[in-house]
Amino acid sequence: MYNLLKGKKGIIFGALDENSIAWKVAERAHEEGATFVLTNAPIAMRMGEIKNLAEKTGSEIIPADATSMEDLENLVEKSMEILGGKIDFVLHSIGMSINVRKGNHYTNSNYDFTHKGFDVSALSFHRVMNVLYNKKAMSNWGSIVALTYMAAQRVFPDYNDMADNKAYLESIARSFGYYFGRDYKVRVNTISQSPTQTRAGSGVKGFTGFLNYAEKMSPLGNASALECADYTITMFSDLTKMVTLQNLMHDGGFSNMGISDVIMDDFIDITEE
Amino acid sequence: MYNLLKGKKGIIFGALDENSIAWKVAERAHEEGATFVLTNAPIAMRMGEIKNLAEKTGSEIIPADATSMEDLENLVEKSMEILGGKIDFVLHSIGMSINVRKGNHYTNSNYDFTHKGFDVSALSFHRVMNVLYNKKAMSNWGSIVALTYMAAQRVFPDYNDMADNKAYLESIARSFGYYFGRDYKVRVNTISQSPTQTRAGSGVKGFTGFLNYAEKMSPLGNASALECADYTITMFSDLTKMVTLQNLMHDGGFSNMGISDVIMDDFIDITEE
Amino acid sequence: MYNLLKGKKGIIFGALDENSIAWKVAERAHEEGATFVLTNAPIAMRMGEIKNLAEKTGSEIIPADATSMEDLENLVEKSMEILGGKIDFVLHSIGMSINVRKGNHYTNSNYDFTHKGFDVSALSFHRVMNVLYNKKAMSNWGSIVALTYMAAQRVFPDYNDMADNKAYLESIARSFGYYFGRDYKVRVNTISQSPTQTRAGSGVKGFTGFLNYAEKMSPLGNASALECADYTITMFSDLTKMVTLQNLMHDGGFSNMGISDVIMDDFIDITEE
Amino acid sequence: MYNLLKGKKGIIFGALDENSIAWKVAERAHEEGATFVLTNAPIAMRMGEIKNLAEKTGSEIIPADATSMEDLENLVEKSMEILGGKIDFVLHSIGMSINVRKGNHYTNSNYDFTHKGFDVSALSFHRVMNVLYNKKAMSNWGSIVALTYMAAQRVFPDYNDMADNKAYLESIARSFGYYFGRDYKVRVNTISQSPTQTRAGSGVKGFTGFLNYAEKMSPLGNASALECADYTITMFSDLTKMVTLQNLMHDGGFSNMGISDVIMDDFIDITEE
Repeated sequence: MYNLLKGKKGIIFGALDENSIAWKVAERAHEEGATFVLTNAPIAMRMGEIKNLAEKTGSEIIPADATSMEDLENLVEKSMEILGGKIDFVLHSIGMSINVRKGNHYTNSNYDFTHKGFDVSALSFHRVMNVLYNKKAMSNWGSIVALTYMAAQRVFPDYNDMADNKAYLESIARSFGYYFGRDYKVRVNTISQSPTQTRAGSGVKGFTGFLNYAEKMSPLGNASALECADYTITMFSDLTKMVTLQNLMHDGGFSNMGISDVIMDDFIDITEE
Repeated sequence: MYNLLKGKKGIIFGALDENSIAWKVAERAHEEGATFVLTNAPIAMRMGEIKNLAEKTGSEIIPADATSMEDLENLVEKSMEILGGKIDFVLHSIGMSINVRKGNHYTNSNYDFTHKGFDVSALSFHRVMNVLYNKKAMSNWGSIVALTYMAAQRVFPDYNDMADNKAYLESIARSFGYYFGRDYKVRVNTISQSPTQTRAGSGVKGFTGFLNYAEKMSPLGNASALECADYTITMFSDLTKMVTLQNLMHDGGFSNMGISDVIMDDFIDITEE
Repeated sequence: MYNLLKGKKGIIFGALDENSIAWKVAERAHEEGATFVLTNAPIAMRMGEIKNLAEKTGSEIIPADATSMEDLENLVEKSMEILGGKIDFVLHSIGMSINVRKGNHYTNSNYDFTHKGFDVSALSFHRVMNVLYNKKAMSNWGSIVALTYMAAQRVFPDYNDMADNKAYLESIARSFGYYFGRDYKVRVNTISQSPTQTRAGSGVKGFTGFLNYAEKMSPLGNASALECADYTITMFSDLTKMVTLQNLMHDGGFSNMGISDVIMDDFIDITEE
Repeated sequence: MYNLLKGKKGIIFGALDENSIAWKVAERAHEEGATFVLTNAPIAMRMGEIKNLAEKTGSEIIPADATSMEDLENLVEKSMEILGGKIDFVLHSIGMSINVRKGNHYTNSNYDFTHKGFDVSALSFHRVMNVLYNKKAMSNWGSIVALTYMAAQRVFPDYNDMADNKAYLESIARSFGYYFGRDYKVRVNTISQSPTQTRAGSGVKGFTGFLNYAEKMSPLGNASALECADYTITMFSDLTKMVTLQNLMHDGGFSNMGISDVIMDDFIDITEE
C-alpha cells in the first residue's frame, strides 16, 4: 500500500495458519514490497497451508527447528542466497508450553516440560540472533521483532510458564539488542500484543473470558492480528530506526488501564447506587 | 511494639480523623517510640478530633497551610524547637481536587480548580521539602514519605485530575530526592496504597465498585490504613536507609496483576463452559 | 515518500525554527501527503521563520496561546474550516520553564514561575485536548502525540521543574487518552525523545555533557530531530491505530541501558586492569 | 535489636561466606529473634565457613541441591521438624552462570551452560516454592524473598545470561506469588540490590568499574550487603504484610537516576565550560 518495505529482505518465523500474526505480517510485508523467506519447525508445518502463503507472497519455505543451531545456520545461509543479500528484518513468533498442553497447573510443573518450553519459546530467540550476529547476516539499520505478551509483566494465571518464558524473551531482546545496536546498528524490540484468537492463544484455558475482559478494559478494544501486522511493518520500516531495546505495547491501551467505566459498572454495589 | 523509631523526631501532615492513614501512622509512630508534631491546614482541622490524637500521642499541633511558605517555615522552625533537634521523618498525606468536589468531569475541567488542586496536592510536597532542605532541618539518614495512588501510572477514570497530581508528586519525590540524598543522605519515597475508605477516598464517585474490584483482583486483598501505617514505619526506620527515589506499591499485589481467577470468572461466556 | 498521511489533516504546535522537532514533523508530514495548520504562541512566533515553513508546506499559520481557551477554540474552529473537516492528527511540542530561564535551582523554585511553566508545558496539553474533545473535532481513529523527555521517569538534575511537568504531561496523555479512545477511537501517546539540540534543549545547563553521555550510553547513539519526525509520522499513520496511552521511547536504546561498554571503560580502576 | 522476627522460623539459601548477603541476613535474622535452617548446594558448601555461621546463630545446616526436588522436599520436611512448625520466611539467594565462568561472550553462548545456569539461578526458585506450596509448608502471612539485580530490566553487558535469568526469576515471583497470596496469604517479592562485592559479584568482568560508576550515580551511594540484610528483615517482619509481587529496588536510588552531577562532570566538553 505504501511501499514501506520496498526492496527489503526478511525472514518470518511462525506463520502457522491464516489466523496467526506471522501470517498477517507476511501478507502485509508482501504488500509493502518486501521479499522474504518463511520458516517453521518441520513438525509444526502444515505444508498445505503455509504453501498457500508462500505462493501468494512469492516466498520460499525453509523448515527449521528454532532450537537447532544447525537448522538455523542453514536457514540464514539459504535465506541470504535466495534473497540475494543480507537480511533487513526478522520476525520471531514462536511460543509453546508443554505444561499448558498437558494441563499441568503452574504450581505443579513438570520441569522437563518447563525446560523444553523455555528452549522453544525463549531461548530460540537467542539462537536466532546468535546465528544472525555471528554470520554478520543483518544489514545495517535492520530490525528484529519478537512477539510477546503482557503476562511477562503482570499475572494472567492461565498463561502458566509462558509468562516466565516471555519475561526471558523480552530480556534477551534487551541483552542481545545492545550488541546488535552497538555493532551493526540493528534494532531489536518486542511487540506485546492484545490477547488474539490464534491457534496458540486458543490453547489457553478460559481464553474467551480473558478476551471479553480485555475488550471491555481497553479504550480501543483488543487489537487484531492484522492491526498487529500493520504495527510490525512500521517497526521494520526506515521510519523507526532509533527505537531499540523496547517492549512495545500494542493492546488498545489495556496496559495502562487501572479500570474502565464498563468494568467498574460490574462491581458497583446495589446499595451504592 | 518494636521500638523501631525510638528517639526519632517527625512531622506528620494530614491526620484528619481516625480513618485517615496519617492518623494511623501517628498512632503507630508513637507506639514505636517516636515523638512528632501533627499538622494540618487550618481550614481542614477538626480541632476536636486531632486534639484527641495529639493527647493520645503526646504531640503538639501546629496548623500550617501547605501552600504557604510562611506557614511551612514556621512549622519547621517550631517543630525543631518542640522536638529538640533536627527532623528524622516526615509524612506528606495531602490531597484534594476541587474538580472532583464540584463534580467537574475530567474532560471539562475548570483550570482555576486544576491549579488550586495541583498546588495543594502536588506542589505542597515541593514546598515542604524546599523548607526542610534550605533550613537544613533533616537529620542525616532521615526519611521523607508521601502517600500516593496508582492512578499516577494507570487510568482510574473517577480519580480525575488527582491522577495527574499524583504523577507530579511522584516526580517531585525523585527530583528533590536526588538533592536530599546527595547532600544530606535523606531518602525520599512515595507509598502507593490500595484504595482506602478514608474521607479523601470516599469523595471519589463509584468508590465502592472500585474497592470491590481491587479486593477481588489483589491476591492478598486490599491493604488497610493500619497496614499502610505499619509499612510507613519501616520506611522511617533505620532498616531501609538505602531505599530512595522509589514509588513503593502497598496494595496486596494489585499493581502486578493482569487478571485474577475471581475476576475472570465474571467474564467467561456461558458458551465456553 | 510513502504517502503515509495522504489526505490527513492536522494541527502542529511548536515549530519554532528549523532545529525544532515540530518543524521536522511539519516537513515530513507534508512529504507524506498531509495538510495542516501551524501554530505557536504569538509571543514565540518568529514570523519570518515559521512563514518559510508555511510557504514550503502550503500551510496556514494561526497564532494561539496554548494557555488560553479562547485562542485554542479559535484555532480548532479555524483549522477545521481551512482544512475542510475534522482533524486527523495533532502534535503538541510545547515546553518552557521560567525557573530554568531565570537560573533558579530546583531546590529553590519560585512557585509563581513553577505554576506558569506548568501551565504552559503540561496543562496546555489538557486544554488542547479539552477543546478538541468538546468540539468533537477529531476524526475517528485520529492520533494525538505530545513530545516528552525521560526526565519524567528518572532524575536529570538540570532538567529542573520540566521533569515534573513532563510527568504531569504524560499522565494527561493517559487520563484524557482514555476518554478519547472510548468515545472517538482517537489514540493519545507521548514520544520520549533523546536529548536534542533544539532551542529548548540548548537552554539546559551542561547540555553538551548530557548529549555526550547519552550518545555513549545508547547502542544506536542519540536520535536526531528528523528521526523523531519520522517516528511521529508512523504514529499519525493508519498503521498504529491500536497503540494508545503509551509513552514511547525514541532514544537509540538509552532508556533500557544500565551501562554501556564505552561508559564503563571510563570508570575502570587502573588497578583492576 | 528490635525483635522484629521474634518466634519466626525460616530457611535461608545461599550463605557462602561472610561477604554474602544471605550470610548477613542470617546474622540479622538471628539478632531479630528468628530461628532458621541454613542450606546450600552440597557442592558449594564450604563446611568450615558455614559451620561458623550455624554455630553463631544456633542453626542447623541441611545441604540441598536447589535443582533437585528430592533434596528440596527433604529440606522442607526436615526444616519443619527442626524448627517445630511451618515456615514464616524464606530467602532465595542463588545464582550462577557457567557461561560467565567459562568466559563465553553473551553473543556466543553455550546453550547447555545456559540451560544449566537457568536451572540453578531461576528455576530453582520455582522448585523451592513448588515444594513449599504443595507441602503447605508456609505459615499464613509468611514471606518469601529472592535476591535479584537490575540487569533484569536494563542492559549491563558483563552480566551476560544472568540478566535473562534474573528476569525469569522476577517473573516467577509474580506468577507463583499470585497463588501463594490467594491460597495462603504468603507474600513473594524480589529485592534488587546494588552491585555488591560478594563472591558471586566478583566473578563479573569489569566489576570494579561497575561499582565505581554505580557509586557515583546513586544519590546515597551503593547499598552494602548488611544494609540489604536489614531491608530483607523488614520484608520478613509483620509490618510489610501487604507488599507482594513486587521487585523492590535497594540501590541508593540508582534505578531512578538518569544522570548525576558527578557523572555528568566527566562528560562535559572543555569547549562548553
